[in-house]
Amino acid sequence: MTILEKRTTALDLRPASDLSDATKAYFDKCLEKLGLIPNVLLAYAFDEKKLRAFTEMYNELMLGDSGLSKIEREMIAVVVSSLNKCYYCLVAHGAAVRQLSGDPALGEMMVMNYRAADLSPRHKAMLAFAEKLTEAPALIEETDRAALRAAGFSDRDIWDIAATAAFYNMSNRVAAAVDMRPNDEYHAMAR
Amino acid sequence: MTILEKRTTALDLRPASDLSDATKAYFDKCLEKLGLIPNVLLAYAFDEKKLRAFTEMYNELMLGDSGLSKIEREMIAVVVSSLNKCYYCLVAHGAAVRQLSGDPALGEMMVMNYRAADLSPRHKAMLAFAEKLTEAPALIEETDRAALRAAGFSDRDIWDIAATAAFYNMSNRVAAAVDMRPNDEYHAMAR
Amino acid sequence: MTILEKRTTALDLRPASDLSDATKAYFDKCLEKLGLIPNVLLAYAFDEKKLRAFTEMYNELMLGDSGLSKIEREMIAVVVSSLNKCYYCLVAHGAAVRQLSGDPALGEMMVMNYRAADLSPRHKAMLAFAEKLTEAPALIEETDRAALRAAGFSDRDIWDIAATAAFYNMSNRVAAAVDMRPNDEYHAMAR
Amino acid sequence: MTILEKRTTALDLRPASDLSDATKAYFDKCLEKLGLIPNVLLAYAFDEKKLRAFTEMYNELMLGDSGLSKIEREMIAVVVSSLNKCYYCLVAHGAAVRQLSGDPALGEMMVMNYRAADLSPRHKAMLAFAEKLTEAPALIEETDRAALRAAGFSDRDIWDIAATAAFYNMSNRVAAAVDMRPNDEYHAMAR
Amino acid sequence: MTILEKRTTALDLRPASDLSDATKAYFDKCLEKLGLIPNVLLAYAFDEKKLRAFTEMYNELMLGDSGLSKIEREMIAVVVSSLNKCYYCLVAHGAAVRQLSGDPALGEMMVMNYRAADLSPRHKAMLAFAEKLTEAPALIEETDRAALRAAGFSDRDIWDIAATAAFYNMSNRVAAAVDMRPNDEYHAMAR
Amino acid sequence: MTILEKRTTALDLRPASDLSDATKAYFDKCLEKLGLIPNVLLAYAFDEKKLRAFTEMYNELMLGDSGLSKIEREMIAVVVSSLNKCYYCLVAHGAAVRQLSGDPALGEMMVMNYRAADLSPRHKAMLAFAEKLTEAPALIEETDRAALRAAGFSDRDIWDIAATAAFYNMSNRVAAAVDMRPNDEYHAMAR
Repeated sequence: MTILEKRTTALDLRPASDLSDATKAYFDKCLEKLGLIPNVLLAYAFDEKKLRAFTEMYNELMLGDSGLSKIEREMIAVVVSSLNKCYYCLVAHGAAVRQLSGDPALGEMMVMNYRAADLSPRHKAMLAFAEKLTEAPALIEETDRAALRAAGFSDRDIWDIAATAAFYNMSNRVAAAVDMRPNDEYHAMAR
Repeated sequence: MTILEKRTTALDLRPASDLSDATKAYFDKCLEKLGLIPNVLLAYAFDEKKLRAFTEMYNELMLGDSGLSKIEREMIAVVVSSLNKCYYCLVAHGAAVRQLSGDPALGEMMVMNYRAADLSPRHKAMLAFAEKLTEAPALIEETDRAALRAAGFSDRDIWDIAATAAFYNMSNRVAAAVDMRPNDEYHAMAR
Repeated sequence: MTILEKRTTALDLRPASDLSDATKAYFDKCLEKLGLIPNVLLAYAFDEKKLRAFTEMYNELMLGDSGLSKIEREMIAVVVSSLNKCYYCLVAHGAAVRQLSGDPALGEMMVMNYRAADLSPRHKAMLAFAEKLTEAPALIEETDRAALRAAGFSDRDIWDIAATAAFYNMSNRVAAAVDMRPNDEYHAMAR
Repeated sequence: MTILEKRTTALDLRPASDLSDATKAYFDKCLEKLGLIPNVLLAYAFDEKKLRAFTEMYNELMLGDSGLSKIEREMIAVVVSSLNKCYYCLVAHGAAVRQLSGDPALGEMMVMNYRAADLSPRHKAMLAFAEKLTEAPALIEETDRAALRAAGFSDRDIWDIAATAAFYNMSNRVAAAVDMRPNDEYHAMAR
Repeated sequence: MTILEKRTTALDLRPASDLSDATKAYFDKCLEKLGLIPNVLLAYAFDEKKLRAFTEMYNELMLGDSGLSKIEREMIAVVVSSLNKCYYCLVAHGAAVRQLSGDPALGEMMVMNYRAADLSPRHKAMLAFAEKLTEAPALIEETDRAALRAAGFSDRDIWDIAATAAFYNMSNRVAAAVDMRPNDEYHAMAR
Repeated sequence: MTILEKRTTALDLRPASDLSDATKAYFDKCLEKLGLIPNVLLAYAFDEKKLRAFTEMYNELMLGDSGLSKIEREMIAVVVSSLNKCYYCLVAHGAAVRQLSGDPALGEMMVMNYRAADLSPRHKAMLAFAEKLTEAPALIEETDRAALRAAGFSDRDIWDIAATAAFYNMSNRVAAAVDMRPNDEYHAMAR
């Protein structure tokens, strides 16, 4: 079985047999840089248009220019995924927090209960907003944005916090809906 | 004030002053076809990369090939937005359900309580899945997917139901986070 | 079929065949003033004693003397019905808010998420109390009444806010229990 | 202090000084039959029109003709009030269940957790409907009414179960909103 | 049937036939002091090691040295049991509050809704902490402990409040899991 | 600083200076067998009576005779702690599941979302009961016990499932109330 025949969800959908050279190159780059092709990519690969739409939004959000550091974006990813109890995202992004921070316990705290961590006021405000946006989006009011500004975030940063938290509310649900399985390699990373 | 100077959210972010010709053409096409440029596009237009990632995912999901009809995708959009109480999305997509179905009461039911509608078993199963995925994604199990298959949906259709419901769980939260305001024109459409 | 034979709920109960002249006159007055007999009245008309008890309480609350204006009472009606997702009451009283305010968007905001509206401190306090009384009556404390007084409401006004919010918590549940259907005419009113 | 000067809520509203002879006679009848004037009546007595609307609906529901026995209606009253944690109604109607049933433990079970009681299928179905109507009215569907019919209830009985459960969802909230205090005498009754 | 053959839960487990002399003496002491052997002890008596572990923890918490008075510990017991709707514990400890306080209404308020009681700031702070610890333990933060200190509690007292509230979150669940039935005698005590 | 001076919670309580020889021996045994003294023991050590009551109940439940294997008891511990988001217990007992099962991914699934695991019917039934008992103890009914019996559990086993789930509902809350910190060593164990 080649990696492209792998089934990574509970649906009977497999990577398209005629993936473009661009996609193959992208997967090769993943293998080279991460040592694996994230299963989420293989899950979307049954339709290259969907795969591309997902990766473009993902890369723009998680790797693009932002007032938020990469570790901050990963912290949001894990906290949102913890609230939604998304196994796939907790495994994959929990590993990312451990790696980027070099602090395994921090990764565990984000997974288990972010309130256990000894956070800076900036990170507390950021994660509290992500939490409320996840659990009760209809209750967000101007005071919630004001709390972020008071913690030093610009309006552009607020957009990025919102967009990142919102993105994982999407991703968590796609993963839950199809029972997406994370790559085994994540478990042992950066422990 | 030109339309590109419009502020459509509570954040101090305005459309980029140097929008590309492609984006301008896209906005012109919106004006021509819908009679308006949806405020969500102007909200994202402070950064063309973000705008493009959003519109590509949106167009692929809502207008691309699928076993789900366009009205079915809009029904999911409205039911998810109703659960999340997203004013922007309810106004914009409620109008879409009224227009596509030619049935104003159906649009209202999706906004207010989808259980009030006299739905086919197919639509009941589809909306029940979207509802559970929105409210309790961690509780989705194989029986939930089996219920969709029993209602006639293919595995590819299940992906599309999941991806659409998940997308609005993202969009609703971006809109809530920044207090996005819908275009006034939606209110009177297709009543 | 005369209007009195109409079935407006999922129960096999129809208006009494021997309605009194007073009730007939009341229905005629509804037709004359509203252009319709609200289905809720036909639903109760299987027993005139129940109908009379309902209309007396309703008329006293919604039309009687009060420090609350009629549009304020309708705003409470819609916000409570939105929290309870009552299709009948949202359709009927949403129309009333549109009519009394002359502002279709305001009606939609009350239906969809009252926080989307740009409300006066008086209306914010009034609706926040109605919301808490609906969702968590056991948590109401003196501070909640104090917040209403601080917004300028008298103790008599507080009673009226409470009684109106409480009434729709009753009405919403009667309507939900019997699947009460609103008159079609409401949908197009005051758009 | 005469009984009509008693303050029974947290609001500065006292019985009207010019109560009608009919109301005075009604209060006398309460004293004679119950040994007390229920505080809820004194609370409403600041405005006789409100008092009359309340008592007419109350008497019709709790004492009028119905396929439900009086004890069944009181059981619904207590179970709804327990879900809403309404101190006033639990004290007053808990006493009524103890009195009408001659079974103090049954009264306690209705107050504390109705599932602790060894109920007939009829009573289980009745209270399960009242519970769902209280906690999640928007989720009531035809299957819920069908469960009542299967337990032997007529459509008219279903109306009465619904109307009684709905009434206490109103009453509980009026009492909570104004911090209504029950008469001391209830505590020791029928223990 | 001797009392040791009594079945006090829905499980087919009865007191061990060879109870030690120490346990028999303990039961005799209960009979002498309380007039009954609490059914919870008979429920655990199928295994003396479990019974002893339970009674040692119980006696240490409820009767041992503490900055909390016995009535305060019983108030916590009842408020937690009310939130968890535990019939066994509400009956047994509701009686204890009535007895220790000599105030039947206070016992009822703790059972029905502790907010109905006119509490000292000390007791409000204590019960608010117990309530939050019961309903949302993951949200406890330093501010919650600070509120207890501000109300005059020492760190040792905070431990005791926490341990007592936590203990009833255990006991309530054992009782619920096995449908534990309270001794009939509790109902009439101290009314 | 000796280990007995360590502060493991947010409270200003430290191990008693005059610990008995029995307790010192117990701590030595922990060090020998586990390589650490679990911080929970140091937290309780400010009062030896409390420490002993806790350890006796803990040892009886987790290590005593039972129809449940040790890994099954640890699975319950982790699932309950995940629902309550208890950082201390998830770290300590997550490590235990990894160790006892030799399956790091299983430990992660119990921490993150037990539904992600491919469980036997026995384990599904056991964890579903523990979940319901944690989240909604008042809703447990005979059908819930019947589901355990159908999965092969005896009445004695049901007691043990209930007692274990209930115990962690206590422990989770003590840990949350005092912000108990787990030993660092747990993080790297059995990865």
